[in-house]
Amino acid sequence: MPVFSAAELIAVGSELLGHTRLDTNSLYITRRLLEVGITVRMKTVVGDSAGDVATALAAALSRVDLVLMTGGLGPTDDDVTREAVSRLLARPLREDAAVLERIKGRFVARGVEMPWINRRQAMVPEGAEVLLNPRGTAPGLWIQSGEKTVVLLPGPPPELQPMVDAIVRDRLAALASGLRYVTRVIRIAGRTESHVEVAALPLYQRWRAERRPIDVTILASPGTIDLHLTVQAGHASEGDANLASAVADLRQTFADDLYTDVGASMEEVVGSLLAERRFTIAAAESCTGGLLTSRLTDVPGSSAYVDRSAIVYSNESKVEWLGVGSDLLGTHGAVSEPVAEAMAAGVRTRANTTIGVGITGIAGPTGGTPDKPVGLVVIGVAAPWGTSVRTRRFSGTREQVKWHASSAALDDVRRALLGRAD
Amino acid sequence: MPVFSAAELIAVGSELLGHTRLDTNSLYITRRLLEVGITVRMKTVVGDSAGDVATALAAALSRVDLVLMTGGLGPTDDDVTREAVSRLLARPLREDAAVLERIKGRFVARGVEMPWINRRQAMVPEGAEVLLNPRGTAPGLWIQSGEKTVVLLPGPPPELQPMVDAIVRDRLAALASGLRYVTRVIRIAGRTESHVEVAALPLYQRWRAERRPIDVTILASPGTIDLHLTVQAGHASEGDANLASAVADLRQTFADDLYTDVGASMEEVVGSLLAERRFTIAAAESCTGGLLTSRLTDVPGSSAYVDRSAIVYSNESKVEWLGVGSDLLGTHGAVSEPVAEAMAAGVRTRANTTIGVGITGIAGPTGGTPDKPVGLVVIGVAAPWGTSVRTRRFSGTREQVKWHASSAALDDVRRALLGRAD
Repeated sequence: MPVFSAAELIAVGSELLGHTRLDTNSLYITRRLLEVGITVRMKTVVGDSAGDVATALAAALSRVDLVLMTGGLGPTDDDVTREAVSRLLARPLREDAAVLERIKGRFVARGVEMPWINRRQAMVPEGAEVLLNPRGTAPGLWIQSGEKTVVLLPGPPPELQPMVDAIVRDRLAALASGLRYVTRVIRIAGRTESHVEVAALPLYQRWRAERRPIDVTILASPGTIDLHLTVQAGHASEGDANLASAVADLRQTFADDLYTDVGASMEEVVGSLLAERRFTIAAAESCTGGLLTSRLTDVPGSSAYVDRSAIVYSNESKVEWLGVGSDLLGTHGAVSEPVAEAMAAGVRTRANTTIGVGITGIAGPTGGTPDKPVGLVVIGVAAPWGTSVRTRRFSGTREQVKWHASSAALDDVRRALLGRAD
Repeated sequence: MPVFSAAELIAVGSELLGHTRLDTNSLYITRRLLEVGITVRMKTVVGDSAGDVATALAAALSRVDLVLMTGGLGPTDDDVTREAVSRLLARPLREDAAVLERIKGRFVARGVEMPWINRRQAMVPEGAEVLLNPRGTAPGLWIQSGEKTVVLLPGPPPELQPMVDAIVRDRLAALASGLRYVTRVIRIAGRTESHVEVAALPLYQRWRAERRPIDVTILASPGTIDLHLTVQAGHASEGDANLASAVADLRQTFADDLYTDVGASMEEVVGSLLAERRFTIAAAESCTGGLLTSRLTDVPGSSAYVDRSAIVYSNESKVEWLGVGSDLLGTHGAVSEPVAEAMAAGVRTRANTTIGVGITGIAGPTGGTPDKPVGLVVIGVAAPWGTSVRTRRFSGTREQVKWHASSAALDDVRRALLGRAD
């Protein structure tokens, strides 16, 4: 009996090589495999060519003992997976009477005769085990070839997913190494990827030297740096304990820049801080155009702390809806620290909330000047204990500047709330 | 000079082998390659292992003359693409002074010193051409090795995309086979995928029988059905002519449900309709929490028609900021047609715009009742020629309901504007 610790995935289908569709099945399969301690080493997408399917499978089998292939099991000429695998593994195809009966039965149940082309789906490589497909005509196939195992699964996700569940539960769980992977996602704001990497490097080295080494993947997304910590463990609680000490190390290194150790979003973190303190928040959004409040209200239960916000694009709206002084706008311009502060204070008063946020900036792509270039964003936060304001410069497209600005505003609110329980 | 008709794509990054992220870059690259007649033969995803990167590249080069690799060009230890490619192609890495200066300059512009690890990003394989990365520190690399070409590109999509554009325009267009694929994206609102499919089926059959058959891919996204029409042509104008007649067929079939034949977003279409008419718009957003106005302001130049909007979550805010009658709220509840109409009319008056939109609904996951279930959304549109209101029921998560509601509101505005030039 082989023991699997790594697998490869091959998705078959020319439509997956176009510019519109991705092989999303691999995410589902990977998640289920990781639960029983099997990692994915490589993923390949090949078109409807028997030669390419065989080449990809041969390459995968040279690296790992378990290959899961999806797609290309349909009834039409361009479904080549069965033929390619049968040839590569020298397992001639034979028509399987029981499979044929099941396929015919599915058509009968719908009151139609089986089209002759579906007969192809009853062809089974010699020595293969048939895997039941409760939701479609194409059965799966489990082929053992020495130490190697090749599993063929249909491509449509509704057919594939219950079959993956069954394989993991009934076969792979017993054949896996017994170890599983436990993951925690830590997120850091206000630092670049390089800065996080440099600061965390000594920790990585220590973690790698542990009995159960902790593996770290660093991922930069706009406005946040994610660290994915993964450890192998005999059971979940052992993994949790190992990761807890790594998280403590990171907390010490990154202090308030670390905003979650359970993969929460910035808006969830800010929402929890507000809800715990029974605070409310309102925003005066210029360049973000409502994105900040939309993100705040993505969190279920956010109506506990979001009452209202004002989107104030024009100067007039800042004056009329927030009471920002025309003199301030005239003297400093709309994108300035005094105006951001006045917006924050104005919306806080008019919405009668604990916290007020003012965001003003130049999202671009036009409207910049040498003094106030595209990407310049000023964020003010007004609270009962005082007002803060900060100017930043972001790069990227209009949508990216909006996203960065809303993330920075959330982070400014988060930092203003930390340690303020009143 | 090689002539390319097929390419392979290799995405490097262990995070792409987990259960959370897909290699979406390949869709963008494929689309641009198809425009110059280059098809993708296989796609591979490998982890941060120099051995696996080299294996995948060697295999790809055995099949095609052009390989584009994305990711693994960062400054950290687990960024192995440069090293793996340099070893496989026997092109030793040398530090490039000009690249190093550019990287340092990027940090200086942000007022910070370059972390020492970023020095790695200035390492260039012997004989490689450096591809400028206007949005990040990692330059791209173009490596010619006999008849084979290997292109290394950074993984973050905002950095990658302009670099792909430049490569296709400046290099690949000249090296491609001459036949190109011309694509047009048609978008339809207010119909399900099955309805679109059934209505378009007779057209598909006619198009497939043409001398240059038109290939159609149908893609359902939340709130919109996309039809991608693709045709092969000797030059762009020939393809354009073929597609124009197909687009005319679709216009006849789908009438006003077809909202773009050039792949524009709904917010761009609505923005153009507003700008052409010199109209302005304001929204009163309850369950969408600012998402509608944020989408409207994603469009460059939207300040021509967006002046301000109100996010009014609570009943009090609807009364105080929009003048919605407390009696209306008491009698009908916040999620009702009279309230949506009053919100639309109220924000139109208070923002002094041509169009006012009111959105009220139950985004969930809690807050639903048997009478007013989660996903119920009411949208009112107030215009000089009158007010319309419509109730819909969406399914999905909180974020999905918000998205559907904002898309429906944009579509309601679009339909209200069609044929109204005054």
